[in-house]
Amino acid sequence: MRISDLSRQAGVSIPTIKFYLRERLLPPGTATGRNQAAYGEVHLRRLELIKALTQIGQLELTTVRQLLAAIEDHQQPLPQLYELVDQAHPVPEPAPGSSTEHLPGARSDVDTLLDDLGWQVGKQAPARERLTAVIATLRRLGCDCRMEFFNDYAAAAETQAVKELDLLPADGVGADRAAAVVRSVLLAAAMAALRRMAQEHYVSSRFGLVADHTGPRSA
Amino acid sequence: MRISDLSRQAGVSIPTIKFYLRERLLPPGTATGRNQAAYGEVHLRRLELIKALTQIGQLELTTVRQLLAAIEDHQQPLPQLYELVDQAHPVPEPAPGSSTEHLPGARSDVDTLLDDLGWQVGKQAPARERLTAVIATLRRLGCDCRMEFFNDYAAAAETQAVKELDLLPADGVGADRAAAVVRSVLLAAAMAALRRMAQEHYVSSRFGLVADHTGPRSA
Repeated sequence: MRISDLSRQAGVSIPTIKFYLRERLLPPGTATGRNQAAYGEVHLRRLELIKALTQIGQLELTTVRQLLAAIEDHQQPLPQLYELVDQAHPVPEPAPGSSTEHLPGARSDVDTLLDDLGWQVGKQAPARERLTAVIATLRRLGCDCRMEFFNDYAAAAETQAVKELDLLPADGVGADRAAAVVRSVLLAAAMAALRRMAQEHYVSSRFGLVADHTGPRSA
Repeated sequence: MRISDLSRQAGVSIPTIKFYLRERLLPPGTATGRNQAAYGEVHLRRLELIKALTQIGQLELTTVRQLLAAIEDHQQPLPQLYELVDQAHPVPEPAPGSSTEHLPGARSDVDTLLDDLGWQVGKQAPARERLTAVIATLRRLGCDCRMEFFNDYAAAAETQAVKELDLLPADGVGADRAAAVVRSVLLAAAMAALRRMAQEHYVSSRFGLVADHTGPRSA
């Protein structure tokens, strides 16, 4: 198909497609003439993958480029691919200032939580740092919640991780690496959305109605 | 305290503090002389709140400004405050192009999911749109997962929402609105981090080791 058809089908503008081609995020088409090329299903799928990761996953284009390279590098073991997905979310800068006073306690509580769960998580894993930063900040701001708050989510995260990996071949060989990345990024967005909806439901059933709700008011 | 002390204690640079003062994200200090002002605990706490929302919550400064105004508007009911938090995460642009073919099916599946859960969620709620977009995109990219995938998370989200609201007064009167916003934003980051760590643990126990792990290799 021509670039205009590709643009229409993928819902990505022609200038953006040309930018992706220049930046090698998209492989070149087959030359069909001077300044003309034909594009196929591989281009369409690639554009949709980029859209999913940038628009829904909210990832930077530089991160998407790294992920695309890792998806295509079939020599790279799956754990490294997932590690890259984990690093795709920027770690909050180590909060200097007075909030550091809560860091050692938060770090030790996270260690205990992970030990209790039996999870092997790298000492430098960005997610470990993020959870530590969240807990230290909540404490500093005086809006603490007990560590048991995290247990239900951890259990759900565990079930989810196992179900997600069950969709891949047991030995990881021949896994659809693009699907693995897309699921990991997009399901995180889905879970955040579910959390918001649970909140909306319980906030309005407890404290009153929001705009277009029709449920009973409990004021 | 002087602006330099405020800067050191909060871990926020003086130019940034001056910018926040100009933008009225931070209330002015008490004038103590020509071009000099004294700052107090209220400024320190406000700076830490801004840091939490921008660095950990990854929110834009314009969004933070709206949230701060809503936190201070004690006439505004809690559901509206939470609605603002929900809108703080940008909705993915409605994906044009061929992926719209999966939107009606995804929308109807989300309706069914929410009906089964008994959650009252606005038809236009950003989180509902996000979940719909995620499911349509997964289907378009051929990396679908069954709707039951979302049940465990929904249950965890439910427990969590209730526990979070239990920390507020039962009638919402006199609630610490800043704490409500901070918890809502930061706990979302905590949950995402837990999800990543569960993934790291199960990926490496199933497919091999990552860098600094010491668990058994299963290759």
